[in-house]
Amino acid sequence: MNSPIRRPAFFVSDRTGITSENMGDALLEQFNGLKFKRATYPFVDTPDKARALVQIINRTAEEHEVRPLVFSSIVNDEIRTIVKTSAGLHLSFFDAFLGQLEDELGMRARHSVVSRAQNTERYDARMEAVNFALNHDDGVSDKNLEEADVILMGVSRSGKTPTCLYLALQYGIRAANYPLTPEDLDSTDLPRMVKNHKHKLFGLTIEAERLHDIRQERRPDSRYAALATCRSEVADAQAMFRRHNLPFTNTTHKSVEELAVSIIQACHLKRRF
Amino acid sequence: MNSPIRRPAFFVSDRTGITSENMGDALLEQFNGLKFKRATYPFVDTPDKARALVQIINRTAEEHEVRPLVFSSIVNDEIRTIVKTSAGLHLSFFDAFLGQLEDELGMRARHSVVSRAQNTERYDARMEAVNFALNHDDGVSDKNLEEADVILMGVSRSGKTPTCLYLALQYGIRAANYPLTPEDLDSTDLPRMVKNHKHKLFGLTIEAERLHDIRQERRPDSRYAALATCRSEVADAQAMFRRHNLPFTNTTHKSVEELAVSIIQACHLKRRF
Repeated sequence: MNSPIRRPAFFVSDRTGITSENMGDALLEQFNGLKFKRATYPFVDTPDKARALVQIINRTAEEHEVRPLVFSSIVNDEIRTIVKTSAGLHLSFFDAFLGQLEDELGMRARHSVVSRAQNTERYDARMEAVNFALNHDDGVSDKNLEEADVILMGVSRSGKTPTCLYLALQYGIRAANYPLTPEDLDSTDLPRMVKNHKHKLFGLTIEAERLHDIRQERRPDSRYAALATCRSEVADAQAMFRRHNLPFTNTTHKSVEELAVSIIQACHLKRRF
Repeated sequence: MNSPIRRPAFFVSDRTGITSENMGDALLEQFNGLKFKRATYPFVDTPDKARALVQIINRTAEEHEVRPLVFSSIVNDEIRTIVKTSAGLHLSFFDAFLGQLEDELGMRARHSVVSRAQNTERYDARMEAVNFALNHDDGVSDKNLEEADVILMGVSRSGKTPTCLYLALQYGIRAANYPLTPEDLDSTDLPRMVKNHKHKLFGLTIEAERLHDIRQERRPDSRYAALATCRSEVADAQAMFRRHNLPFTNTTHKSVEELAVSIIQACHLKRRF
């Protein structure tokens, strides 16, 4: 039997490489059990950098005695052509789709990196959303909750903060969050601070065992982290969501991306850029 | 002359749709001046949802009298086949690349959505990085700066916080930030709090005019926002970066993604998931 080869995978772009990484990850996770040796090369935006990269790919191919995978989102034709001279298998995003789109739209594409220079609008929307999330993290303030697009509610450590920040950074959505305290959970009413914003509330719940693990990391062997506490808080929170007919989701097996997109869908939120 | 058609563009996925949006955005921005009517359909993961979507695409095609663009990252063959019966132009990510990769790797891909269920490791790395960024935002604490992967330094409103949060969420990188105060800028020394971590420092600078605009939004007509203040703070900050040989970049024309990737590259940072 051959020992398994850890195939080299290059993610290459004349911009950040985020598109080529996304694309490559989505493809590679389709191959069960294979491991890859990853390397990202962003900002390959001159012929010299492209030629240097070709040498790296070729050297890697020789050392590993296997053809490296090259996930490329290089839009500049000259640079892409140089990179394609390497010994790797080229999965080139723009080669696959740009020609088709040009035919359909009846115009020639730019074939060059689009400057984001004028994009202060997007930057400002993002900044404001991030500041909003930071100023409305963990129920610290009910100021300007009218300006919230959504308010995430859940017990401590159920995943509210990263989800709010992701909504802000990725979509410019203003997401506040409110942590349910033991007092809140004892009441049959909604917490005072968020009561008038019921239509914006979205609940996060989590499996008690997972919550216990997370809280143990923070405060080992505390009452806060005890499995019994986690079980009762989670049960009370879910009862509250049901009693008041709030949309909610279980965060246990979801990534932050999946949570964000589920919330956008359930609450009909609009991205701000 | 025809009035310009705002072509409908669908972003479709059996997961979050983030890959199809990335891919579609990168392609569409290559067509100068064209506007598109965007709609994202995530979690199209049953044949029924796929058939409902086909009807929506077909109705849109009739209403607009033009073929909609459909950027698809649907991995399930049955669902993808249904969506492809619609009247749109299908730019299907998995169709373009999965077969090529199967041939190269000599194995059949899963052709089904990969559950992220076991991915608590990734979630934990992310949570920790987000908590780290929040606990080390705006120089509030020098506790555990040894655990920082990088420390962003710059004048107030130069873009530190969103960049730190993006590094945390996207790469699990622990990024602290330190705001340069007028006192810091008067000194020829590095600020006391970060002095012992010089090898982790990365400077952010910004054009004075842009900084002025941002600060005006926050505190209109203050000394803090005055163009003269912005000019002198920016000049002093850049002088400090140069004097101490710190790597730095100008944030004015860069997106948060570009900043994050530039910093990773300059500081040789490693993603934690």
